Amino acid sequence: MGMPVMRNKVSLSLLSDDPPSRFLEKSVLPLDAAPIHVKTTGGAPRTSVLRNPNMEKLQKGYLFPEISIKHEAHLKKYPDAKVISLGIGDTTEPIPSVITSAMAEYVLALSTPEGYQGYGPEQGQMNLRKVIAEKVYPAMGIKESEVFISDGAQCDIARLQTLFGPNVTIAVQDPTFPGYVDNGVIVGQTGSADEAGKYAGIAYMRCAPENHFFPDLSRAPRTDVIFFCSPNNPTGHAASAAQLRELVDFARRNGSIIVFDTAYACVAQAGGLACLSTEEGRDAVRRVVGVYKDNARVLVDTFASLGKEVYGGTDSPYVWVRFPGHRSWDVFAEILEKTHVITVPGSGFGPGGEGFIRVSAFNSRDRVLEAAARLKKFLA
Amino acid sequence: MGMPVMRNKVSLSLLSDDPPSRFLEKSVLPLDAAPIHVKTTGGAPRTSVLRNPNMEKLQKGYLFPEISIKHEAHLKKYPDAKVISLGIGDTTEPIPSVITSAMAEYVLALSTPEGYQGYGPEQGQMNLRKVIAEKVYPAMGIKESEVFISDGAQCDIARLQTLFGPNVTIAVQDPTFPGYVDNGVIVGQTGSADEAGKYAGIAYMRCAPENHFFPDLSRAPRTDVIFFCSPNNPTGHAASAAQLRELVDFARRNGSIIVFDTAYACVAQAGGLACLSTEEGRDAVRRVVGVYKDNARVLVDTFASLGKEVYGGTDSPYVWVRFPGHRSWDVFAEILEKTHVITVPGSGFGPGGEGFIRVSAFNSRDRVLEAAARLKKFLA
Repeated sequence: MGMPVMRNKVSLSLLSDDPPSRFLEKSVLPLDAAPIHVKTTGGAPRTSVLRNPNMEKLQKGYLFPEISIKHEAHLKKYPDAKVISLGIGDTTEPIPSVITSAMAEYVLALSTPEGYQGYGPEQGQMNLRKVIAEKVYPAMGIKESEVFISDGAQCDIARLQTLFGPNVTIAVQDPTFPGYVDNGVIVGQTGSADEAGKYAGIAYMRCAPENHFFPDLSRAPRTDVIFFCSPNNPTGHAASAAQLRELVDFARRNGSIIVFDTAYACVAQAGGLACLSTEEGRDAVRRVVGVYKDNARVLVDTFASLGKEVYGGTDSPYVWVRFPGHRSWDVFAEILEKTHVITVPGSGFGPGGEGFIRVSAFNSRDRVLEAAARLKKFLA
Repeated sequence: MGMPVMRNKVSLSLLSDDPPSRFLEKSVLPLDAAPIHVKTTGGAPRTSVLRNPNMEKLQKGYLFPEISIKHEAHLKKYPDAKVISLGIGDTTEPIPSVITSAMAEYVLALSTPEGYQGYGPEQGQMNLRKVIAEKVYPAMGIKESEVFISDGAQCDIARLQTLFGPNVTIAVQDPTFPGYVDNGVIVGQTGSADEAGKYAGIAYMRCAPENHFFPDLSRAPRTDVIFFCSPNNPTGHAASAAQLRELVDFARRNGSIIVFDTAYACVAQAGGLACLSTEEGRDAVRRVVGVYKDNARVLVDTFASLGKEVYGGTDSPYVWVRFPGHRSWDVFAEILEKTHVITVPGSGFGPGGEGFIRVSAFNSRDRVLEAAARLKKFLA
C-alpha cells in the first residue's frame, strides 16, 4: 500500500460520495522521486472529519450533473440513439480566427525573453480594461481602473457570496440561475429547503408570464442584496430600460446592492482585446452570435406552431416553454425518451420554474433543425 | 449621472476601501446599447450592507499587496533606483517552446469545426490526467480518474476550506504560506488574532532551525486537518521521507486529513501534456528549473559567506535567512533602503517567521548576481 499522504488535489474526491478513508490511501511525490512505501497494520485509515454543514442543505444535486446522469442512462438504454443536446448552455461554433490568432501570438511570445510574463496583473491587463471601458461603457464615465477582468461570472458569484458572508439577506428572481442561491446556502445565508425547494431566508421574486417575467416589487421584501440576471437564465427574458429603472429605484429606497449579471450580454475573454478593438473582431463576434440567434428563432417558431406557450429566444440564447399541469422533470424525461433531445427541467432553476422546460439555442444549425423536426413530430 | 445599476464585475470594488455607495453609481449595458440616463434627486445612494464579519478578523493586509505598496513608495523616493525583486515568487524565464507550440496549436484549432470545444471537461482533459497518473505517480496504482486538473493550488485551498467549513480544526506549519490560515479565517474556523498574529483556534506547529524545520509532533494537538507544505514556503525546507512517514503516522492515529501542498514540486498546466509526455518536454522543464536552482545556490552562498544563518535553497526556490534580534519588517526596510532589493519579511508567514527574511530565486541570472553583489556590500 502506498504511503498515505494525501495528494494535493483533493477537491474532487471530497465532493464525491467516496468514504473519507479514501483520502488517506495515496500519496503525491515530486516528479522523478522514487515511490515510498510504508507498512501499515490493519485496515484502511479512518477519519471522522466532517464537511461544511451548509453543504448538506443543498438540494439533491446541481442541476447539470443530474442531467448528465440521465443522459448517460439514456445512452445505455439506446446505444444507437443520435442524442441532440439542447440542454446545458454550451457553444458549438468555432471561435473567429481573429480572436484565436491573437491568443496564439500571445502564447508563442511567452517563449521569448521579451514576451514572457510571470504572474499577470491580478485585475487584468490594463489595455484590455481600457478597451472595455471605452467600447462597452461609452460616454458613461467609466474609467479603466473600474473594470476588473475575472475568470468568469460563476467564480465571481461564489466570491461575492463569500464576501457578503452569512449575515446578509438576498433576493433572487424565481426562476433563475441556481448559482446565486447555492452559494448563499454554502456561506450560511439560509435555513433548509422546503418541499418546493425554497430555502428559508431567501426572498424569491416570482417571474412568470403573468407578470411579464418582471417581479412585482410592490410585494417584494427589502433585502441587503438583489441578484438580477438579464437576459434571464432560464426564461430568456431581457428586462426593459423601464423595468431596470424600477428595480434601481426599489434598491435605492431600500439601500440594497444589486448584483447585475449580464452573462449573455456579450463577450470578454482571452481574445477580448482583438475582438473589441477592431471592426473585424466585432463583426466576427456578431456573426457567431447571429448563428445562435437564428437557432433560437427556429426553436421559438417550432413550439409556437404547435400551440405551446413559448417565451424568451429574443436577444437571449434560451427558449422557455410551458407545459401546464405537468412536472418539469416528467416533461424532460418524456421528450428525451421520445425524441432523444436533451432539454433542461425548469424546476431546476427554482420553484417558479415548475411546469416549464428550458431549450438552449447553443448547437449547430443542422442539429437544431433536426431537433425541431423531432419535436414537431412528438408534440403534434 | 449614469443609471445606478450595479455593474456585473464588482469583486474589486467590494474589496477596496471605497464607500459602499460607489457600487450604485454606474451601470452595465449590452454591447452596442445606447446609454440610459436616469434623473436622481439628492446625493449619492447609500447602503448599510455589511461584508462577511470574518473578513474583519484578517490581519492588516495580505503580505504581497503590502510589499507592493512599500515597493511603490520606494520608487517615489528613489525614481532612478534599479530595484531588483527577490520578493514574490514570480518566474522570469521564458516558457520552453515545446510547451507554447502545443498551446498555440490547440488555440488555433478552436477556430475549426473539428478543433472547437465548448465547456471543457470539468475535471480536466482525460489524456492529460492519464499522463499525470502514469508519469507523476508511477507504480503507485493511481488511476487517471483520481487525478483532477484545477486552476491552481491557491484556488484549491480556498475551495477546500469552504468544503471543510467553520467547524473544522486545522494545524499549519509556522511559518507557512498564508493562504491556509487566511481562508480558514474567512470561513469562520478561528477567533481573532493576538498581538503576535496567532489566530485563536489554529494549531501553529513551529518549524525552526532548532527542530530542523520539522514540527515536534509529540507536542502538537490533534486537529481535523493538517496543512503541510513541502518544499515549505517560505523556509524552503523539503521534508525527508522519514519525516513524512512520521507525519502520516501522526495523522492516522488522530484520524486527521493531511492536505499536502507540493506547489513547487513541479509543473502541471496548459502545456502540461506536451511537457510530461515527451522526453524533449521533460528536458525543457528541467532546464528552466535548473536556472532557478542555480540562482538559489548563488543566494545561499552569498549569505553563508557573510556568516549568516541561511536555510532552504536546495530543491526549493526560496532561501530563508535569519537576522537574530531584528524584526523582519525592519530588515526588509533596511535592505530595500540600502540595496534597492525587495525581499519578503518572514513574519508575514506566521509568528514563527519573525526574525527571518525570505529571498526568492525567481529572477534572471544577471539580476540575481547583481543583487548578490549589492547584498555582499551591504552586509559586509
